[in-house]
Formats: sequence, C-alpha cells, structure tokens
Amino acid sequence: MHRATLRDLEPDRIVRLEDDAVVVLDQRRLPDEVIELRCADPAELADAIRSLAVRGAPAIGVAAAYGLALAATQGRDLDAAYETLAASRPTAVNLRWALAEMRADPTPERARRIHEDEVARCLAMGAHAAELVPPAARILTHCNAGGLATGGYGSAVGAIRAAAERGGVSHVWIDETRPLLQGARLTAFELEAVGIPHAVIVDAAAASRMAAGEVDIVITGADRIAANGDSANKIGTYSLAVLARYHEIPFVIVAPTSTIDPETASGAGIPIEERDGAEVTARFPARNPAFDVTPAGLIAAIVTEEGIHRAPYAESLPAPVGSR
Amino acid sequence: MHRATLRDLEPDRIVRLEDDAVVVLDQRRLPDEVIELRCADPAELADAIRSLAVRGAPAIGVAAAYGLALAATQGRDLDAAYETLAASRPTAVNLRWALAEMRADPTPERARRIHEDEVARCLAMGAHAAELVPPAARILTHCNAGGLATGGYGSAVGAIRAAAERGGVSHVWIDETRPLLQGARLTAFELEAVGIPHAVIVDAAAASRMAAGEVDIVITGADRIAANGDSANKIGTYSLAVLARYHEIPFVIVAPTSTIDPETASGAGIPIEERDGAEVTARFPARNPAFDVTPAGLIAAIVTEEGIHRAPYAESLPAPVGSR
Repeated sequence: MHRATLRDLEPDRIVRLEDDAVVVLDQRRLPDEVIELRCADPAELADAIRSLAVRGAPAIGVAAAYGLALAATQGRDLDAAYETLAASRPTAVNLRWALAEMRADPTPERARRIHEDEVARCLAMGAHAAELVPPAARILTHCNAGGLATGGYGSAVGAIRAAAERGGVSHVWIDETRPLLQGARLTAFELEAVGIPHAVIVDAAAASRMAAGEVDIVITGADRIAANGDSANKIGTYSLAVLARYHEIPFVIVAPTSTIDPETASGAGIPIEERDGAEVTARFPARNPAFDVTPAGLIAAIVTEEGIHRAPYAESLPAPVGSR
Repeated sequence: MHRATLRDLEPDRIVRLEDDAVVVLDQRRLPDEVIELRCADPAELADAIRSLAVRGAPAIGVAAAYGLALAATQGRDLDAAYETLAASRPTAVNLRWALAEMRADPTPERARRIHEDEVARCLAMGAHAAELVPPAARILTHCNAGGLATGGYGSAVGAIRAAAERGGVSHVWIDETRPLLQGARLTAFELEAVGIPHAVIVDAAAASRMAAGEVDIVITGADRIAANGDSANKIGTYSLAVLARYHEIPFVIVAPTSTIDPETASGAGIPIEERDGAEVTARFPARNPAFDVTPAGLIAAIVTEEGIHRAPYAESLPAPVGSR
C-alpha cells in the first residue's frame, strides 16, 4: 500500500505537458495504485477526461490547455482539437474557458501559465476561506475539491489546509461520494498526505453527524457558478446545503473565478451531465446524474481568489478571469 | 442472471425451520446468487444475523424465534441460546421481543405463528399505508424494508405493493443505501419481482429528485420506534426526513408494532450499532454507524398494522404486540 505524501500532490505530478504527451496522474486508480497515464493526442486526452482519469473542473481546464498546446506542437487542426476537448465533459465551464484562452495563444508557455494561475488562485482562495473557519473546526466536505481536482493545492481542500495552518482543524468528515468515491479515494488520500485528521463516512451519514453537533462548517468546491450564485457541483452537494441550513451550519463554496459563468443567469441554465447508470448498479435500472445545483440562497459564502463573496451574488461575484 | 420472481419472496423461502436447521435466503449474495444458508445451531444463526445474511428487524426476530425452537428440539440450554441470539444485533427490538415470546413456549409451532403474524401485520400495514399514497405516486424509499426484511411482503415495500394495487405507483426511487447497498441489491430485486417501475439512485441524489418535483412521498421502515415516536432506521433515513421536510414532502414510516419499544422514552435511548469501518473503505479511517434516529417531529405518520398514527406519538402509538 502506497502511503500518500506531499510529492504525490505536486502540480507537475497531477498534470504536465511533455514533448509528446499530456501526462496525468490516473485518478481512477488512486489510492490503490499511483500511476501516470500518457495521452499522446487530443482524442486520448478527451478519453482521459471523459473516463475521469483526470477530473475536477480546474484540473480539466489545465489538462485541456496542455492538450491544445500539444496539438499545436504536433501541427494538428486546432479547431478539431478544440471541439474534441470541449465535448469531453458538459458541466464544468473552466474547460471551455481554458480552451478559449489557448486559441489565442496555443503555446506550452501559455498552458503552463494557466496551470500556475490555477494553483496561485487556490493559495489565495485558501487564505480567504480560512477566515471563515473557526479554530479547531470540525469540517465536512464532499467529493474531491483538492489538489487533484485543481492541478495543485485544491479549493475546498486548500481551504482546509489553510485553516489547519491558521487555527488548526480538529477533524474532517469526508463524504465518500458515490458512485465513484472521489471522497473516499482522493480526498482521504490528500488529507493523509498533508496529515490532517479525517474519517470517511457514507454520504447518507452526514446528516446525523450534523445532528450530533460534530460539524462546524461544510466546505465544497463547485464545477460551475451561475451569475446569481447558484452553484453546480458533484451530486449530493445540494443535499448537504439543505441539511446544513436545517442544522444552522454554514455551507461555503470555495472555487476559482474560472468557475464563474456570467453567461448563465441561474442554475436552471447549467447542463447536468447524466452518466451511465452502470456506475451505480449494473443489475437494475438506475439514474446517475453526476451533478446537482445548489441555489444561491443556501450558500453562506462563495470564496474565490478575489475574496469572500456574500449574497446577493449577482452583485458580489467578481467577473471571471479572462473577461477582464 | 437470475430474474427475480414472486417465488423468491415467499415467506418460507426467506426464512424457515427444518428438522435440523434454520434455513435463510442468503441476503449477502442477492441479487447475483439466490442461495440458501443452513444454520445448524444458535451460534451459526447468530453469525448469519451478525453478518447480515438475514437482516431487517422483523426478519431477525422471526429467524431468532426459529433458532430458539431449534435449540429446544436439540435439547440445548435455552438461556445460552437466548443470550447468543439476543447479542447478535443491538438496535432492533423485535429480536428481543421474539426471543422473549419463545422463552414461554419454545416450540416450532409458536415460532411459525410469530412468522405468520409478521407477514399478516405487513398485509395490514400495507392496506393502511396505501391510504396515504396518492394515485400514480412517485415514491422514494431507502434500504430494504421489504419482504426480505420482514419474512414476507414487507413494511415500506408492502406499502408500495398495496399502493400499486390501489391507485397505481408511477415510479419508485430506490436509494442504493451505502455501505451495504440493501436498496440497490434487495429492494430493486423485490420491485423487479412484483413488476413495479423503479430506478436506483445514489443516496446523495435523493435531494435533487425532490427539488425536481419527482417525489410525492418518502416511505421507509424502522428498526426501533421509541415511545415518543423517534425512530431508528438505516443510516440515511434521518437525512431523508430532513430533506423531505425542506421540500414539503410527507415522510412516512411503516413498521409493525413489534418494532415499538415503550421502554425507550426517546431516540436518545436507542443504541446505534457501529459497524466495521472497512464496510465503507478498507484504506482510510472511516466511521460506520449503521443506523440513525429520526425525531418524531419530522415524521408525518407512523403506520403499523393497527392503523395510521399521527403526532403526538406518545399518545397515538399502540402498545406493542405481546404486551397486551
């Protein structure tokens, strides 16, 4: 068994561009195997994104940026590469944003700057979000909004890391996050690497931890934030937001401005990816929406690298990076 | 692949007494394999209960009753058999109730009557509960409160079956119910057998189905009901009750009077079984409470074989069978 270390979470380990490939840490195999996947062209990278070998809205954007740079160095049709990569996942907006950035300047340097910027945003987000976390907090999180999802450091996990340095974190409850167990596999791996006490619970156990008074704050990431603050994130996030409201616990989203989509007025306009029911059960009929939308009214704060934003979000959310 | 049929759900198929063994349908293997497990003495039966080969509060009581009858026919020490079986699971109260009944009359006939009575209670519960279900309802349920859990017909699933006969059921959303997937494996198996449309969802997706207006009523079973109506059931039930309240959807419990524990004043007095964290993840620290408690205030109605009971439950709940 590989015990997670900080080296496993370094940005160039999570995703990087080499001369002939985009190389990603295969997140489908974690934590049992720590192996890299080489994607030699945009189609292979799109497969890696679709199959969740690399996942998390910012990390997908970074990987796609490297993919477009790779296509340019290989002399490929950039329009075709753009379409292939843009079609790989529908919900995240960072993907399209990063690809649009790269169209203007499809160089390795530009892609690496996008990557560095995402990690820098995480560090800034973490510092802001830590202000919302009480000392010695018991934090509950869902899915993996960690370094693996952002290309380094993490959004929600970044906030936990920053809070641990600032006032200490007593304990993190990690929703296992069915069906693909990103919490049990990836967030637990990251918290093991950074040495923050944690325990995995089934998603349905979050409510009784809240009722028992063992949760001070809920922190998640977001895949897309509409102009009014409605936020799409991994299926189950909305459930946590309702449960947090009932138990009078703050529910906070930490996400980079690259996640904000000013073109989408509200959550109703965010496409929700429906994945294969066999991810849930191969034996009986199943429905498998991968995301849900949390209405702005249930969100205590949205934290970006720009700071802490409060309702009404239509006024407080910053313009996304790249549109300025 | 075995396609489920009504024969699979017959009471003597789920649990029965033979001359030299208590025979149970092994619920750990369903739905992939439909095989029986022979328990030749009380210790083997206690193992089968502990390992969830037979599970569900009423079914455990029935199996334990057969176990005590078997011990009597084998000339075993009945006090020792009682202790062995009573210690197998802590949360359900039916187990101790059925064992106490058998102490007075440890005969196969008495055990079979307990079994028949549980099934008869399910039929009565179903008829009462169906009155609460609107025609063509979209129902959400959790775990397996079906015939497999009661020894035949089922409590919550019995209500769904009775509602399907009465006014039709459009659709049943089945929470998969982590960590052991009783919903995805057992409730889906039962609804396949009876031909009611259904789809399995991850537990964390229930909230967004409610928000989408696709759930008319939530129906679950209970493992123990305290005197004030607080009800212990599979982990995640409390979460559903809070979510149902937020979405203004009735949350109804269907359970036999053998589940009512007048000795326990409120949910705070119900012991919650904590199972091995490896059921959740073998790799990282985990917490694995098997049940949670839903406060009476979140329960729209508790349905027993006696009828539909409303708050205040301390006044409306009937005395449990056996205490009259």
